[in-house]
This record gives sequence, structure tokens and C-alpha cells, in this order.
Amino acid sequence: MLAVTILGNNSALPAFDRHPTSQVVTMEEHIFLIDCGEGTQMQMAKYKIRRSKINHVFISHLHGDHYFGLIGLLTSMGLLGRTQDLHIYAPSVLQAIVELQLKVANIELPYPLHFHPLLGEGVIVSEPKFEVSAFHVYHRIECWGFRFREIRPLRRVNPEKARQYDVPSSFFDRLKKGEDYQSQSGQVVPNVSVTDPAPHARSYAYSSDTLFDERIIEKVRGVDLLYHETTYLKELEERAGKRFHSTTVQAATVARRAGAKRLLIGHFSSKYEKLDLFEQEAREVFPNTDLALEGVTYRI
Amino acid sequence: MLAVTILGNNSALPAFDRHPTSQVVTMEEHIFLIDCGEGTQMQMAKYKIRRSKINHVFISHLHGDHYFGLIGLLTSMGLLGRTQDLHIYAPSVLQAIVELQLKVANIELPYPLHFHPLLGEGVIVSEPKFEVSAFHVYHRIECWGFRFREIRPLRRVNPEKARQYDVPSSFFDRLKKGEDYQSQSGQVVPNVSVTDPAPHARSYAYSSDTLFDERIIEKVRGVDLLYHETTYLKELEERAGKRFHSTTVQAATVARRAGAKRLLIGHFSSKYEKLDLFEQEAREVFPNTDLALEGVTYRI
Repeated sequence: MLAVTILGNNSALPAFDRHPTSQVVTMEEHIFLIDCGEGTQMQMAKYKIRRSKINHVFISHLHGDHYFGLIGLLTSMGLLGRTQDLHIYAPSVLQAIVELQLKVANIELPYPLHFHPLLGEGVIVSEPKFEVSAFHVYHRIECWGFRFREIRPLRRVNPEKARQYDVPSSFFDRLKKGEDYQSQSGQVVPNVSVTDPAPHARSYAYSSDTLFDERIIEKVRGVDLLYHETTYLKELEERAGKRFHSTTVQAATVARRAGAKRLLIGHFSSKYEKLDLFEQEAREVFPNTDLALEGVTYRI
Repeated sequence: MLAVTILGNNSALPAFDRHPTSQVVTMEEHIFLIDCGEGTQMQMAKYKIRRSKINHVFISHLHGDHYFGLIGLLTSMGLLGRTQDLHIYAPSVLQAIVELQLKVANIELPYPLHFHPLLGEGVIVSEPKFEVSAFHVYHRIECWGFRFREIRPLRRVNPEKARQYDVPSSFFDRLKKGEDYQSQSGQVVPNVSVTDPAPHARSYAYSSDTLFDERIIEKVRGVDLLYHETTYLKELEERAGKRFHSTTVQAATVARRAGAKRLLIGHFSSKYEKLDLFEQEAREVFPNTDLALEGVTYRI
């Protein structure tokens, strides 16, 4: 299972019962938290997200609507008796803020907290089954997007066919990696004859607060699901640019040109009570678009 | 009008849809904010508290459940275009935390923000119609209570009687201050003969997170309404002491011995889903006790 659950879909000012940005990515037994606006821990309780399953937190940038809820979550995890490690990937100065807040409260967390400052684009988490990369997006202050992808699993050996071609089972591990088999007599059995392709390795990209910038297209090329902010409707393109945000049409254009399979839009301005025009405008450019709605899980 | 509205009544961990500590005191046209746990700005929206009327914020101590919502409120006030001054009374290091968070977000607030570090007991706000004092309470870290009181209004001249005694109206201002009138012939008109007493000057004391300590009794002597924390029921008195918190019976004892007119209890532990035992236990010691319930306004 690979899925995204939205905890907050609004921009800076909470409004109309929409909350500041936060979402969780569920990948097999892992839950990754992306951004953590004020009230995220309450949203987690409401939508039954298991905090104890979160070992990785990604903070895109240090505007409050993306991280003011983090310190509350960290201290609550401590009060709940967490002991396992927690990793935070964020702009470097976040560590100083969190440590200062813990210090003045005279709190020592009962679990190891590891800060990983975001210093450049590239892989930041590498595990056997998945990896996460960071990439630059273009906002008023340092800001990062994150790309999650499954590790492309190995090819699958077809034991029936392998037996037909007399490939010994001791060679199966190398078959899985794509190697051809050469028998002692010199005969070559092509890998494709005895294996099936690996299943598709799915991917998700979270493009945080950003103005429309063509450089993002390559960074999210071919993802199964792209989250792109759309703070404004298309008529406010000029305001969006001035405030380093994007419109519906701009987000959809990135999705279309990047060849994303599906687009999720969020970070709606508190100017807007109703969101239907967001969906409508984006779909005109990229039909497979959905609104990021709080509490909804989008499967990939 | 003097009243307290509860925005959050729970202790550290948000639970059962109860929120971390925050409340507002309404005194004539002023709204004072006391403590500001995570989510306070959302609670204000829910209960229609007018943020623009708040010019004074009091933070009792720097445990997160009493101030993690402040930075979000301050930045939201900025986004809403606030221009009038805001005064914050808090342990001194709060200023460094707030300024760091504003700096990394590259935010300059559009209104003047004044920090007033709490340095000792005594009057911290003095206005013609009210004053606010700070007093020590006894928690694991530096922690303050706040006492709000109306300035005792002047005595009221009874114009009928003043005329009977031939007191000229030019002397009325001095009558209001309590002076006796002496006529040119040397005859003294006692003040009480021509004036009525000033109406009662009401007061409210907020005693924040604290263990039971007799020293608090004098500090809240005779208030019309006392808010005292009751994190635990009476059976957990030992745990309360160890964690620098109070029980129902302890809070009610303070109210009784201080001669408070009424007691409001809150800061309930997330251990407890139901609160009726809190009310019951406290009323056994101090009958005029109420639970501090979120969204409810208690008139004084």
C-alpha cells in the first residue's frame, strides 16, 4: 500500500475549518509525516493516524503554517512514552528552535531525536524498500519538495520456465537482478525467457509552497501522484507570482508537462470558502486532478 | 461586564476533544488572553472571540500546552493586517523564541509587539479602569498566576443629600474621593452623609499550573472568581505533588481558605474522559465550584 492522507489543506490562515498544511504518506508499514502545521496532532487524533508508526518527518520550510505543530507533536510523543528514534529532515535552523523550546520547558525527550539538515538536492533516506529525495522548490524562503519512491523490486523468476531451460536454482538471485544465464556448454539463456518484469515502482512527489517554475517539471517527472500547491485561482496569477505561490493552471501545467499520472492540489488561500473552481480550473489543463481534502486518503 | 471564557481546559496531551490551556478575560471593551496552547486561534474562531480586541497576552509559563499556539496567533494577526500594539507578559525567554521564529520565516509583523518579562510579583498592567498583577505559583519551572481587578470606582455623590447639606457642586469631585466637606462657617459634613459607596470592585485570579501551596491563599484572597488547576482527582494526590500539579480537594481548599466567592477548575489530565468526579470532589470542600468547560463564558 502506498497512499497519502491529507491532514491540512489550507494556506497560512486557518479558515472554514480547513487547517494548515500537513499530510502523511503511508508506505507498507511506514508512515511519513510531511509538514506539520498548528493542530496537526489533533488532526491525527481525529483521523486515527498512528503517531507511533511515524519515524520520519519532513519539513519543507519554516513558514509557520508548515511547522508550528511540530513541537507539540514531539512533546506529546514524549508524554506518550515513545522510545524509538525519530528522524527530522528540515532546514537546519529548525533544530535550534526545537532545542530552545525543549530547554526552556526543562524537557528531555525519552526518545532519540535526529535532525538531518537539508543541504542539497538528492536522496535523503535510503531504505531497502523505499527512498526519499529532496528537491528545491521556489518560495520566499528556503523551501524543499520531497519525492518518495519504492525501490524497484527485483525481477521475478518463473520457476517453471527456469526448469525448462535447465537454470539451476543457485543462479536465481542473479536472474532476479536481470543477468542472463550461460550454461557450462556455453549456451546463453536470455533473462527475459525465464523471468517476469518487476512490478511497477510507484512514486509520489510533494511540491511544497512554490511559484510556478519550469525547473520543477524535471524533478517530478513521471510520478504516479504529484501534490502541487494551488494557493490561488488562475485569475490571481500575478498575485501568486508576487507571493511565491501558484495557481490552478500553473499546478496543472506542471503535472501535464511532467507526465504525472495524477495531480492533487491543496494549500488553498483563506480567501476562498468554496473549492469547486479549483478543481474545475485545474482539470481543464490536467483532467486527472483532485482536491486534497482533509481526512481523505488518496491511494497510489 | 467582567467574564472569563474558556478556550482550552485540558492538561498537556490534547484528548477527548479537550484542548490545551487558554482562556480570555473580558473586561468592558478589553479582551485579555491568558495562556495560548496549540490550536487557540482555531478555538477563538470557533467561539467567536474577536482577536482584534486583544491587546494584552499573559503567558504563565513555558510548557508547551500553555504557549505553543502563541506564535501562530501572532502571525495570523499580522496576516489579518493588525496595526495596533500588542503587549505580551511572559517569562523573559519567550521573546527570544518568538523573534527566532519570525526571523527564520523572514516575517516582519505589521504591528508593534512589546514583550514585558515577568520579573517579580506585583502590578504589571495599570490602567484607569483595571489593573493586573502577577504572582508566583509553584510548578516545575518558573510559573506565574495573574490577578485582574477593577479599579475601585469613586464613591457616588447623592445630589439630593448634597443639596440638603449645602455642599456646592464644585466640591463633588472631592466628595467622590471620600473627603468630608467643611463649610465656610466651619461646619463639617461627613462624606458618608452625602455619598453612596462605590460599587464592588470585582476581581479574578488565574492560578496556573501549580502544586498545592499555602502561599497561594494570600495571593488570591477574596477574589470573586478563582481559577485553580486540578489536574488530578484527590486519590492521586501523591502523583499531583510529584508532578507539581494539584487535585480537586487541594484547589477547593485554596478557594475556601482564601475566601473566594466562586471556583473554576480546569487543566484536567488526559487520563480522565469524564469530568463529573472533578466537580463532585471539589464541591465537597467548596460548594460554589464549576468545571471550566470549553466555549463557556463565566460571568463575574
